[in-house]
Amino acid sequence: MPSIVARGAASRYRHRACDRALRLLPALTAMPDHACPGGTLDPPLIDTLRDILGDRLSLSDAVRRQHGRDESYHDLAAPDAVAFPRSTGEVAAIVAACARHRVPVIAFGTGTALEGGVAAPTGGVSIDLGGMDRIVRVSAEDMDATVEAGVTRKRLNDHLRDTGLFFPIDPGADASIGGMAATRASGTNAVRYGTMREAVLGLTVVMADGRIIRTGTRARKSAAGYDLTRLLVGAEGTLGIITEVTLRLHGIPEAVSSAVCAFPSVADAVNTVILTIQSGVPVARIELLDELMVEACNRYSKLDQEIAPTLFFEFHGSQGGVVEQAETVQAIARDFGGRDFTWATRPEDRSRLWQARHDAYYAGLSLRPGGRGMTTDVCVPISRLADCILATQADIADAGLTAPMVGHVGDGNFHLLLIVDPDDKAELARATALHERLVGRALAMDGTCTGEHGIGTGKIPFLEAEHGEAIGVMRAVKQALDPLGLLNPGKVLRL
Amino acid sequence: MPSIVARGAASRYRHRACDRALRLLPALTAMPDHACPGGTLDPPLIDTLRDILGDRLSLSDAVRRQHGRDESYHDLAAPDAVAFPRSTGEVAAIVAACARHRVPVIAFGTGTALEGGVAAPTGGVSIDLGGMDRIVRVSAEDMDATVEAGVTRKRLNDHLRDTGLFFPIDPGADASIGGMAATRASGTNAVRYGTMREAVLGLTVVMADGRIIRTGTRARKSAAGYDLTRLLVGAEGTLGIITEVTLRLHGIPEAVSSAVCAFPSVADAVNTVILTIQSGVPVARIELLDELMVEACNRYSKLDQEIAPTLFFEFHGSQGGVVEQAETVQAIARDFGGRDFTWATRPEDRSRLWQARHDAYYAGLSLRPGGRGMTTDVCVPISRLADCILATQADIADAGLTAPMVGHVGDGNFHLLLIVDPDDKAELARATALHERLVGRALAMDGTCTGEHGIGTGKIPFLEAEHGEAIGVMRAVKQALDPLGLLNPGKVLRL
Repeated sequence: MPSIVARGAASRYRHRACDRALRLLPALTAMPDHACPGGTLDPPLIDTLRDILGDRLSLSDAVRRQHGRDESYHDLAAPDAVAFPRSTGEVAAIVAACARHRVPVIAFGTGTALEGGVAAPTGGVSIDLGGMDRIVRVSAEDMDATVEAGVTRKRLNDHLRDTGLFFPIDPGADASIGGMAATRASGTNAVRYGTMREAVLGLTVVMADGRIIRTGTRARKSAAGYDLTRLLVGAEGTLGIITEVTLRLHGIPEAVSSAVCAFPSVADAVNTVILTIQSGVPVARIELLDELMVEACNRYSKLDQEIAPTLFFEFHGSQGGVVEQAETVQAIARDFGGRDFTWATRPEDRSRLWQARHDAYYAGLSLRPGGRGMTTDVCVPISRLADCILATQADIADAGLTAPMVGHVGDGNFHLLLIVDPDDKAELARATALHERLVGRALAMDGTCTGEHGIGTGKIPFLEAEHGEAIGVMRAVKQALDPLGLLNPGKVLRL
Repeated sequence: MPSIVARGAASRYRHRACDRALRLLPALTAMPDHACPGGTLDPPLIDTLRDILGDRLSLSDAVRRQHGRDESYHDLAAPDAVAFPRSTGEVAAIVAACARHRVPVIAFGTGTALEGGVAAPTGGVSIDLGGMDRIVRVSAEDMDATVEAGVTRKRLNDHLRDTGLFFPIDPGADASIGGMAATRASGTNAVRYGTMREAVLGLTVVMADGRIIRTGTRARKSAAGYDLTRLLVGAEGTLGIITEVTLRLHGIPEAVSSAVCAFPSVADAVNTVILTIQSGVPVARIELLDELMVEACNRYSKLDQEIAPTLFFEFHGSQGGVVEQAETVQAIARDFGGRDFTWATRPEDRSRLWQARHDAYYAGLSLRPGGRGMTTDVCVPISRLADCILATQADIADAGLTAPMVGHVGDGNFHLLLIVDPDDKAELARATALHERLVGRALAMDGTCTGEHGIGTGKIPFLEAEHGEAIGVMRAVKQALDPLGLLNPGKVLRL
């Protein structure tokens, strides 16, 4: 249990130290994980939080550390305390109490994000929404549902199984719906079903002063006022804390089939993707793995794929529709030298295939035991995708780095997993420089610095490069809605 | 030419008078159209505007009146001057000059909106973007385009004809793309292709102080910072003036067919819609006309439809896909007593059918020559659609009103055209009360007070009823981005 001291010199020092640490981010350093020296909350605030939460407030070092980082390479920065609320009212009471004490609050879902968004660089209270896991309502007729923020996507889909509906957005990890909304998550089948931007109909949100608002309704469309739903989706908890989400669902397709196809080159695979999208084939998933990633997946997930640039497809539709889609895509692939499709139509084969795809991150890491993964993503207009990927591969070769690639290429979005030796400063510098060049290349192509990972602490300078003057507008919105700067400080924007 | 006087007593009086007029809206009154006594801008501001625009600044009474109202029943409130810029830079210069003089600016597209959004209740400068009509670029490969705000949707589609692409969003009127973005327009085929919320990839916007920002990129998805694009889409020019829009386009479908089907009752037609949507049929359009509206369209557009609640369908897809969709829907319709489909597969027959649908507003008005049309729209979860429509029809009958109905029912969105005698105060009061009950009913069903017409001056109290505490957040955003309250004042929010 950390010592509890009154706010004063120590606390001020801590904040200065953290500010410095924050300035150093997102530069990749070889420093070992470190927590801010923390656990220093005002005793009266702790009393208030205990009144709200009882024993659902933790000051333990282990729990704080666990909430101070996500699955990424970004440094640990532990909060001073972790709250485990069970209702929107409790979240509102926590936020209001912290606001009175000028203490930061950071929403925490499952901690599976990749840009350091849950870290607490200036301390404060992490609000773990995992206990808010009720599925509030499902309307099969309207194909929508309302869930608390802590419900994970797999749990929701288990719950929906008998309704004939599913929630399609799949970022790989079994993330919480609240976290997915906060980070504007997408994933493998966004090409067909959209991202959280399209999936969220409405939100319940606790604002910086503890007010509870509802945005949106259950209407499918609305022209009623400012689109606060879309403003809060993707704001990474810096404008409010999402506690409930109303989601659009989809009917489970009558037929689903998956196929794998190897290509002579990355360019051939990407050109197949481009033509597929341009032909209007409503493909549900279309994922590229480069040679190195296929090798990693073969080894890690016991697959037996040819070591070549490979596309994973999934088709959803009626029986006839799926056949028609697959025939069209197979014909396109053939024109680019694609081998015959290897089919996975049985659910267990499909699961194995997509599990391997989802495990690509771990598979990639396994290429270099002891290495540290620096994962990133960019998204470009699809006509530039082949150029962007090929230039990046050449860059990887020039830099002598290990960096398998995998991508949601139907959206023009791909990931690079730079695997670096944390003790090799020169290699780290080369990886950082390559990362910067990759983002610069994507922006020059009128793309974005992140298709789905978000900004967190990791991409703040890139956000500024991408948005120019519009950053001032984002800052004005932030200052209007969180004038004390207590909601997830140090993320998304430099204030 | 109106007299130009220095700002002073007369101008202050004008503003007070307009404030009072604004408070009376949206109550439907029998008052004849009136302009604010206007045309009173500071001479130095006029000089500055002439420096920017030359003779593209008009102070004429006719031009000002033309820019002081849209196609709705809402009262005229003319601006003091109308500017006709030809570039984003000119818009920025106008806005900056007006900001220095504390004079309102109101963006004007084609004036085809329906909630009084272009009126100038506190005077100011109307910025007519019709001269910004360049199609900046089209990328057939990426299926996107960038256009200036004044390009109309029909012009864009004419331009796209040879690319195999089209811009699907169709609110009926040949509105400008900028206006459609500002009002979050949708229309007949939103059920398949979404609304302007989904169609806009990025914007160029002039902010309240004259700064120019760009939001979004050409990437299909992004997790990079606050979604300013979606914040500005639907803000009705109250947060910034949209001068360029980057749009997502779609491939022209291989096959298109339209069909008409009459039903024994509105409930049967609506239940057909509900089951069609729930069955996941990707219908491109599914529109309901009630008996009275069919009668009006027959007369106005020389159709020969059975006088019965009727659905208009359009199917897009491959040849096989269209047949499959149509067979599924025909089978559903039959279960609800629908007659055989009447097909319109030739382009000219389809055009005639959909032109009649688009002319429904004028057809409805023609039911009662001399009557004034009070049009409104609500949107509810689709499971509540039949209840909402039937209760509304009963309400119309009880109130003894003439009010044909037409709707984008696949989205749960429908319109009512209340046709009233402007000299009959009792009838106006009944119409206003019915309108309020309709919106109240939609909100009680977790729907929205407007699916696509927007708030303008007409629905401000309803917006407040719909959003509760969230109105305070909208207000904070407005104050942050337009602290002087000069962007389209009196619209969307009461400050």
